Amino acid sequence: MNIQNASPEQLRHYIRHGMLDGHTSGLAKGYVQANVVILPSAYAYDFLKFCFRNPKSCPLLDVSEVGSTSFPYFANSADIRTDVAEYRVYKDGELVETPTDITHLYNDDLVSFLIGCSFTFEHALLEAQIPIRHIEEQHNVPMYITNIPTEASGIFSGPTTVSMRPMTVAQALKATEITTRFKDVHGTPLHFGDPETIGIKNINKPDFGEAVTINTNEIPVFWGCGVTPQSVALNVKPPLMITHSPGHMFITDIRDSEMSQ
Amino acid sequence: MNIQNASPEQLRHYIRHGMLDGHTSGLAKGYVQANVVILPSAYAYDFLKFCFRNPKSCPLLDVSEVGSTSFPYFANSADIRTDVAEYRVYKDGELVETPTDITHLYNDDLVSFLIGCSFTFEHALLEAQIPIRHIEEQHNVPMYITNIPTEASGIFSGPTTVSMRPMTVAQALKATEITTRFKDVHGTPLHFGDPETIGIKNINKPDFGEAVTINTNEIPVFWGCGVTPQSVALNVKPPLMITHSPGHMFITDIRDSEMSQ
Repeated sequence: MNIQNASPEQLRHYIRHGMLDGHTSGLAKGYVQANVVILPSAYAYDFLKFCFRNPKSCPLLDVSEVGSTSFPYFANSADIRTDVAEYRVYKDGELVETPTDITHLYNDDLVSFLIGCSFTFEHALLEAQIPIRHIEEQHNVPMYITNIPTEASGIFSGPTTVSMRPMTVAQALKATEITTRFKDVHGTPLHFGDPETIGIKNINKPDFGEAVTINTNEIPVFWGCGVTPQSVALNVKPPLMITHSPGHMFITDIRDSEMSQ
Repeated sequence: MNIQNASPEQLRHYIRHGMLDGHTSGLAKGYVQANVVILPSAYAYDFLKFCFRNPKSCPLLDVSEVGSTSFPYFANSADIRTDVAEYRVYKDGELVETPTDITHLYNDDLVSFLIGCSFTFEHALLEAQIPIRHIEEQHNVPMYITNIPTEASGIFSGPTTVSMRPMTVAQALKATEITTRFKDVHGTPLHFGDPETIGIKNINKPDFGEAVTINTNEIPVFWGCGVTPQSVALNVKPPLMITHSPGHMFITDIRDSEMSQ
């Protein structure tokens, strides 16, 4: 079992059979990894519309047919019930279980959504010699709930969550240029500079993830974050909602380069 | 009443009050005009997903809330029941009426979709000195049903309809370059050259619109066409479906330049 050079299909096979259960960061290099949101079909229309209306924080990559366990374009041979290393199961908005398999929960009424993840554009930034502080400091990216409202859709509404990467002004401009090409994985920044402008009181106390060092010659740069659709969906306390566990992403068959426009 | 310099809101007002009832080509210069599809909410999820999966032929611009008569982003002050100069009303897949107002038909269960229209990228092509033959010959663009399948979504499936503009190879390359920036209004061509490759038997007999002259130094260049979602939706014979009449587009508040990416 050679994990480093394994294809997305092989990696999903390893995960499916319990041979791989950790974070997926650094695996399937060059392939898109995705956030997962699974909801009852009664919520699917408003959620799909929510993603359409909020492309920077909720860039929808693919959606299953109702009750289907695979994705027509991004992973035709996948099985969403088994191919994520760790899931989070919410009932009425409460986390009740973090299983490695959701076969016992999946049913004909569920719809699975794949949402773009910043892993894709971070590769492109690193290749352009732009440092990614949370990777250097080896922990999760800092994320903040802002005062930027999302565009509501039916029952779904709420604030935008952003991720933050510190960089120099020159790097921020270069990063904006690069992420212009990655509209399906959050696109360009939502904000840079003063955190208070977007309602962040203390940059050293992120709402999710961990704080990173911001050097004196650097500004914080904020991108829309895939936590947004999850937190907005949880707000309405659906009877059942299943997501991936942080860092345990769904590995797709689509190359990062196909996300560059 | 100065139509040529009227704002989108003023033009919708004129249309709403029966002061303007013709084609909208050339009006509201610089503003996005849109194809309209109105469906019962039971069809809305599969149709929204169909648009998401087929962005080149069905570039979704905006969608109303269920029962709402305006559009949150593209035309907040509009009333979709009155602001299109001529509608087409289909019942069980059959055209039954072409009214100038659908107030008597609209109800709390309907959802209105705005879909990108080639008017937007044609402006950009004309500005780049690329001739648009059907405009020169003063008739509707020729459209063809191809053998290119759409990506199915629930009950919706069927072939892609394309529009065709003849140009030289150099112009075709320039047009591809330009339309790369217009992903929300059909984007780059789906095909150029041999029509038979995409299942078109006779280029002089379009399925919709009218044939145009193709000069000996020119090739046909094919773009995804907004007729696709209408024809795919009609295939399933919904109890009620309302669209704009050809050429009688919905005028939005959004500038063409905002469609350029």
